[in-house]
Amino acid sequence: MNPSEISAPGSHLVADWQALMRTFIHPENDATRKILVKYMEQILFGLHTFLADHVGITEEVSLKKLAQRFTDTRINDQPEKKLADVITDLIENIAPHAVNVASPYFVGHMTAAIPFFMVHLKTIAAALNQNTVKLETSKVVSIIEKQVLAKIHRLIFNRRSSFYDHHVQHVETTLGSFVEDGTLANITALWVARNRLLGPRPGFAGVENDGLPAAFAAWGVKRCVVLVSRLGHYSLKKAGGLLGIGNRNVIPVDVDEHNRIDLSALQRKMDELGKSTAGTRILGVVGIAGTTETGSIDALPALATICRDRQIHFHVDAAWGGPTLMSERYRRLLDGIGLADSVSIDGHKQLYMPMSCGMVFFKDPLAMDVVAYHAGYINRPGSVDLGIKSLSGSREANSLILDSALKIMGLKGYALLIDHGIETARQFAREIKRRPLFELVTAPELNILTYRINPETDAPHKSAPSVHRRRSALERLNSINTTVQRLQRERGKSFVSRTTLYPSTAQGTGMVVLRCVIMNPLTTIGILKSILDEQTTIYRNAFSASES
Amino acid sequence: MNPSEISAPGSHLVADWQALMRTFIHPENDATRKILVKYMEQILFGLHTFLADHVGITEEVSLKKLAQRFTDTRINDQPEKKLADVITDLIENIAPHAVNVASPYFVGHMTAAIPFFMVHLKTIAAALNQNTVKLETSKVVSIIEKQVLAKIHRLIFNRRSSFYDHHVQHVETTLGSFVEDGTLANITALWVARNRLLGPRPGFAGVENDGLPAAFAAWGVKRCVVLVSRLGHYSLKKAGGLLGIGNRNVIPVDVDEHNRIDLSALQRKMDELGKSTAGTRILGVVGIAGTTETGSIDALPALATICRDRQIHFHVDAAWGGPTLMSERYRRLLDGIGLADSVSIDGHKQLYMPMSCGMVFFKDPLAMDVVAYHAGYINRPGSVDLGIKSLSGSREANSLILDSALKIMGLKGYALLIDHGIETARQFAREIKRRPLFELVTAPELNILTYRINPETDAPHKSAPSVHRRRSALERLNSINTTVQRLQRERGKSFVSRTTLYPSTAQGTGMVVLRCVIMNPLTTIGILKSILDEQTTIYRNAFSASES
Repeated sequence: MNPSEISAPGSHLVADWQALMRTFIHPENDATRKILVKYMEQILFGLHTFLADHVGITEEVSLKKLAQRFTDTRINDQPEKKLADVITDLIENIAPHAVNVASPYFVGHMTAAIPFFMVHLKTIAAALNQNTVKLETSKVVSIIEKQVLAKIHRLIFNRRSSFYDHHVQHVETTLGSFVEDGTLANITALWVARNRLLGPRPGFAGVENDGLPAAFAAWGVKRCVVLVSRLGHYSLKKAGGLLGIGNRNVIPVDVDEHNRIDLSALQRKMDELGKSTAGTRILGVVGIAGTTETGSIDALPALATICRDRQIHFHVDAAWGGPTLMSERYRRLLDGIGLADSVSIDGHKQLYMPMSCGMVFFKDPLAMDVVAYHAGYINRPGSVDLGIKSLSGSREANSLILDSALKIMGLKGYALLIDHGIETARQFAREIKRRPLFELVTAPELNILTYRINPETDAPHKSAPSVHRRRSALERLNSINTTVQRLQRERGKSFVSRTTLYPSTAQGTGMVVLRCVIMNPLTTIGILKSILDEQTTIYRNAFSASES
Repeated sequence: MNPSEISAPGSHLVADWQALMRTFIHPENDATRKILVKYMEQILFGLHTFLADHVGITEEVSLKKLAQRFTDTRINDQPEKKLADVITDLIENIAPHAVNVASPYFVGHMTAAIPFFMVHLKTIAAALNQNTVKLETSKVVSIIEKQVLAKIHRLIFNRRSSFYDHHVQHVETTLGSFVEDGTLANITALWVARNRLLGPRPGFAGVENDGLPAAFAAWGVKRCVVLVSRLGHYSLKKAGGLLGIGNRNVIPVDVDEHNRIDLSALQRKMDELGKSTAGTRILGVVGIAGTTETGSIDALPALATICRDRQIHFHVDAAWGGPTLMSERYRRLLDGIGLADSVSIDGHKQLYMPMSCGMVFFKDPLAMDVVAYHAGYINRPGSVDLGIKSLSGSREANSLILDSALKIMGLKGYALLIDHGIETARQFAREIKRRPLFELVTAPELNILTYRINPETDAPHKSAPSVHRRRSALERLNSINTTVQRLQRERGKSFVSRTTLYPSTAQGTGMVVLRCVIMNPLTTIGILKSILDEQTTIYRNAFSASES
């Protein structure tokens, strides 16, 4: 009489109506309740005990071999497994081949360890299963969503109390929107910017209604561009493609030696665009508050001034760095973010929420009016239906998770995590500098740094007289770093990522670097040192030995 | 020593580093484990016991009053609440004002009761916290995702075994994609269709790169349109706006008396578009397999033939009806779906998954190549990184939930639910016909029907000699149905939704109808009868009394 099984008792599983019905009923007797709780215990701790015993990132099985086990494409006619077996299977056979993103040795990506209680909060959202597309399937949750969006809006834009009192529960204004992730947040921001730039005028109903070619004709525009540093997230190019302006028109601008957008290069690009092509309009400028690759922060106040002077939409992609605003010690790094017209922040990054929770905010509570859609059966005009101004339709109640997390953590709790990440990254940078085998490539501004293995201090890739020799020396370094990163990943004990940077010293050839993202409070400088030790060993075994 | 609290012990909460760290550690002692399990028990049953005791849909509090309680927009500096208090608060103060979508009396929307084990599966996905954007943060989960997408692809398109053997784990081909919901599924399908229609040609790099105005110029196109019945989901209009073709160019086509797209009207519209505007291209035709408002299914084989003859992308929006393919008894209703170029299906609808899980499938495994994006640090060409061809970036592992659910349910288990919905809807239609106060407006083809209160059998809105009198009679009926639906919702015991249909008999004025969606196995004909009884009472109290 286990309510979690849809098949009748017996060794041979058969779908059964009575058993199925029971999976929809809240179990009333203690025995069945105990079983369901036991499963949760297995999920919470079976998984974690396993991962704790196997401290590594993932088991060492090649992807090809793994893939061969997952090739059956038929859905079984009858049930194949009971919930208990599914859980055991996930813990024993699947989890070991997933990636232990919670390991303090996993410092390669922006996917985090999350506090234990986040799993509970996600479970609550699942158990309530509200759909925030409309009031009729969410009611109070829509109201909580408006409130928590206002809280984050206030953190970013810090407008007057009266502004928030007026808008927090206003039926017709919108301070922001939950979206699936940072990509959709950036897309939403540029969607709004496009529609505001190419709105209605006499004889033209606006780009959203009439389309982009008609908008160009109506406004005498020949080309729309978005400007962003070349460290901008690839979702911005995707947004350009999706929105019809063309991803080639998301134009990368050079960065300075701190990996921030080069302001004079930006000015030159703007002037050039103004001159060369009549009818070029700048749809938006994107500032980055925490680049994906190096964690650098653009000069937001300067960008804001440029955009204000030219009346250009100023978007800040703070998907990564946004929560730094919660740290009293480091929030000044984001000075100027409140001057943006729109801001992206990811909850599943530095707000330590479970996958996936993106958010986008607009300074102007009417900004999203240009992307409003209604339908006869829901989302009626003048209602609180959140689906009216939203890229997606059905959405889970991430607001419940965020709102609860803010109450459990407080600003101070989040600040502890932010400060730990930044300060540990700085310690790590000093350690890298101390080791002759390694070279710090980009120092941490936030909690991200890049470095590489570089065995020769007086490196021929920099000093060699011929371009050809410099390039081949660089290629050799790139190959060393690519190999060491791969071997370390395959060993499965620890994980740093790699990427390719294009610093001006590299003569246009990409420089392969190792990338470290520190966002786990259990990641200590000791662990980071041991990661360097392992890289040293891997390097010596793979390269030095064969050369000596 | 509770690992779920980030503050030090004591009545005054203060963020504390040691306590915070513990929330990231897998608890090693029994006492702390027991506490965390107890919280899960509260979540699983505290919530459900509460909802069972209050069988209604939601508590009777006006939205305005409710909103007044959620206006504080400051984030507390220190922690405000412990996890235990957050959970209690959610159960006692929030849940009663949320919507009990699991109630068998909630038959108004496509948001479902879900089987108990789905909550467990969602918790597993949260505890693993994989990010399926790339292999390095998901590994085996990316492989499972490819497998389960192939399973659903096979259910829809039923291509040869050798086709699936070749593609199921192919690194460079893609059978479909998980997206947030049906809206993003439809957007993805039309994005692909747009890019295939306006691809590269000599001197032009394709619409994704160069943008839509340039594409129009290169291909000699003046206008791009999408054709869909006027019962098409509003996300299609949104897709038109977002993609730059303009939402006015998503053109509604009339429906026949069964609420299916009128094929001759479609042909006429196509001919007219061919003639009137030189340079009009049809980007896609959308067939609907389960319209949101009436559950009707377009004549998919006929649409497929029309599209094949004219070489037009044929998309089927089966967000609602897709899972009907799992029912041996009713899958023939979706005949022709395998002839589509792309298909949308929602997991959180009739696959009974928790919010939110959309999916989109393409018959051609190379179709999504036109929306591929790479980045230096992830999603490298030639990798299994699923984020390469995907509208979003970071995504949670919905594939684990779906794959497990398919194993637990089997096709037969899902078929039981599908069959129950359709057959109960038919019973309900017969019951409505038997009651003189009610009029069945659209009979159920799937598990959705619409009806209305219509006190007069020989209704003046149909028979009155003057248009004016007919219209005013219709308006009175509309007002009755709007009021009764609202009052029933406000009473909070049961919930049907309402929408406005435009049947040809209504002379262009909208007809307000009550809409019933049956997808809960606990919803019996007895419950549906009691909903009609309640509507009768509400109607009599509000209208008959005042008139007699």
